[in-house]
Amino acid sequence: MKSADLERVRIILVGTTHPGNIGSSARAMKAMGVTNLHLVNPQGFPSAVATAQASGADDLLSRAVVHGSLDQALIGCSTVYGTTGRARHIGWPTLGPRVAANEIRQKLQQADTVAIVFGPERSGLSNEELDRCKCAIWIPTAANFRSLNLAQAVQILAYELRMTEGEGEPYFASSGDDDKGDGPASALELIELKSHLMRIMEAVYYYDPNRPKLLNRRITRLLNRSVLLHSEAQILRGFLTAIETKL
Amino acid sequence: MKSADLERVRIILVGTTHPGNIGSSARAMKAMGVTNLHLVNPQGFPSAVATAQASGADDLLSRAVVHGSLDQALIGCSTVYGTTGRARHIGWPTLGPRVAANEIRQKLQQADTVAIVFGPERSGLSNEELDRCKCAIWIPTAANFRSLNLAQAVQILAYELRMTEGEGEPYFASSGDDDKGDGPASALELIELKSHLMRIMEAVYYYDPNRPKLLNRRITRLLNRSVLLHSEAQILRGFLTAIETKL
Repeated sequence: MKSADLERVRIILVGTTHPGNIGSSARAMKAMGVTNLHLVNPQGFPSAVATAQASGADDLLSRAVVHGSLDQALIGCSTVYGTTGRARHIGWPTLGPRVAANEIRQKLQQADTVAIVFGPERSGLSNEELDRCKCAIWIPTAANFRSLNLAQAVQILAYELRMTEGEGEPYFASSGDDDKGDGPASALELIELKSHLMRIMEAVYYYDPNRPKLLNRRITRLLNRSVLLHSEAQILRGFLTAIETKL
Repeated sequence: MKSADLERVRIILVGTTHPGNIGSSARAMKAMGVTNLHLVNPQGFPSAVATAQASGADDLLSRAVVHGSLDQALIGCSTVYGTTGRARHIGWPTLGPRVAANEIRQKLQQADTVAIVFGPERSGLSNEELDRCKCAIWIPTAANFRSLNLAQAVQILAYELRMTEGEGEPYFASSGDDDKGDGPASALELIELKSHLMRIMEAVYYYDPNRPKLLNRRITRLLNRSVLLHSEAQILRGFLTAIETKL
């Protein structure tokens, strides 16, 4: 994903009561390259507290679009995710932040504009607000303390979005004994691994190139999510070659 | 990983200048089940600001151990990671937070006690302090704004540690068309997938059970990191069965 894609992610904060949290959220977003901030009925905004907390991300605050309703804030967004503090929200499909970020990346690649909505600090999104969302995102927390600050929730989602970029996992050198000098598999390695895999899948009649759509897409998604190391891509290639030889 | 394992992760904040950041870090930690906080020469701590920011995580503050030096804070830790804001820190192997968290999980399973050290807000860890660390952790940021708040950095690391737990990725229901009702592969599914994979690797002479150590461990590590869905485990099992049939 190109960083420019992240500009099509709209972070929408609904009914935020502490302007400092708007500032901290802006800083969290900007550090991850997510810069599109929308606010629905924020309390006490603009505010010097928000600007102080933004700490250099005040350009996001001055460009932030303020709306009178969530519906207004969602205009132009093709897909909407709502965050929730309740692990099982009856009636809404619920994703973890990592799976959600990967799904969002795919939508951005299709040139969609995606919204992630965060509710007020105390109450979270109402059911009526969640009704506007395709699905809910729940951030895993400790069972005995589920209290995540708003800006921290924004940070985790923005971080996961950043991690879906190729540069996401800097693995310049391993600290393990067995993979010194290892790094993430390159885009080319992944493409070659995938085409090798599909070739073997075809050879054993597991993959029908005349009905390629679903399996192909699922393998791509799986590989994208795996953050393979160079050495691991080599292991898998070696295994595929061994199968070929045996066949 | 059992949640209890996370108690053997020691978060060490060195020379923190804003007590509010200590409080926010405590809240970020507790929400992720990481509860072991150590402080080296904190400024203005304890403090009402820290307690207010902790917002219910003040038990971590009252249990926090204050030290006069980093060396003192590291006593009893078998492995030490230092966070850095510099992407390429000459002389230190550098990991991303995800790879680091997975490595830490493995160490915790071996009953190690692991420290993650965070430097002062403005300057970060000095080279002398990084010398105490096995390797550095760098959180990826946008190229034009690398300013991550201390508590946000703590949040990301604590979150990645939480995500290494089995419950890490709640995928109660997918929002995709093609995998409705899908969920994460269970531990048993992963064990069965791995043993099936090793069996085929042996059948094509790629895996020598007399020299199992390295490959075995690397496959485990790869599978642990992949956050496989139930449906994806099934796809891979189906592929392995197809290879078996063809052989």
